[in-house]
Amino acid sequence: MGGLNRRMTDGSETAVEFGHVRALNQSELLDTLSFDRDGLIPAIVQDARTKQVLMMAWMNATSLERTLALGETVFWSRSRQELWHKGATSGNIQRVVELRVDCDGDTLLILVEPAGPACHTGEVSCFYRTLEHHVD
Amino acid sequence: MGGLNRRMTDGSETAVEFGHVRALNQSELLDTLSFDRDGLIPAIVQDARTKQVLMMAWMNATSLERTLALGETVFWSRSRQELWHKGATSGNIQRVVELRVDCDGDTLLILVEPAGPACHTGEVSCFYRTLEHHVD
Repeated sequence: MGGLNRRMTDGSETAVEFGHVRALNQSELLDTLSFDRDGLIPAIVQDARTKQVLMMAWMNATSLERTLALGETVFWSRSRQELWHKGATSGNIQRVVELRVDCDGDTLLILVEPAGPACHTGEVSCFYRTLEHHVD
Repeated sequence: MGGLNRRMTDGSETAVEFGHVRALNQSELLDTLSFDRDGLIPAIVQDARTKQVLMMAWMNATSLERTLALGETVFWSRSRQELWHKGATSGNIQRVVELRVDCDGDTLLILVEPAGPACHTGEVSCFYRTLEHHVD
């Protein structure tokens, strides 16, 4: 099975909850994207259900193409310099529910249904550390 | 008034809703950060109340320092090569409610209370374009 499908695995539909949204077809999406000098674009991964931001990783054109074809996130590992199908070894794949692009086309926001924790530490989100609260 | 204050302007407290969180003091936070070869770190901005991802922008050490001192987002504009206090001209400032860092210290997640739209187009979020839904 491949491609994006907004229906969650339990059969529910995710709602487009946030205001006005403009739909692009795949060719329009690709035309709007701006990759950096290394051929990469940052991809923010957000849980489609809880809205928790899970991680940020990088994609090149090939990993984006694989992501769209597979319906699961595939990144470019900058440290290993290779394609990285998230969850291929851990089982914690991220099923892509929706893919958005920002106003200047240089950042992706990917809404996913995660099969498990996003972080290699076992935390649900990579953003598990917070600056201490300090009051004026 | 400066510094971060988790209390919203209507007096409500934002809850740390998402699982286990480890608190860092400011010195620990700065020690953990990894800036890129241009001295920049990406900062994801999320609405603390709605959890909508609003934008992604870049910070250098100085803009982060100003953000923490002011309690409002200050970025580094890569196109203008200057500090950019979000909302300084539009009035659409982003009050910082919480600041998180990811597991490898190379991305920030900033939860804010925005005074208005994040996007220069007038959209609430810069991520107002979505890939057309296609079913298998």
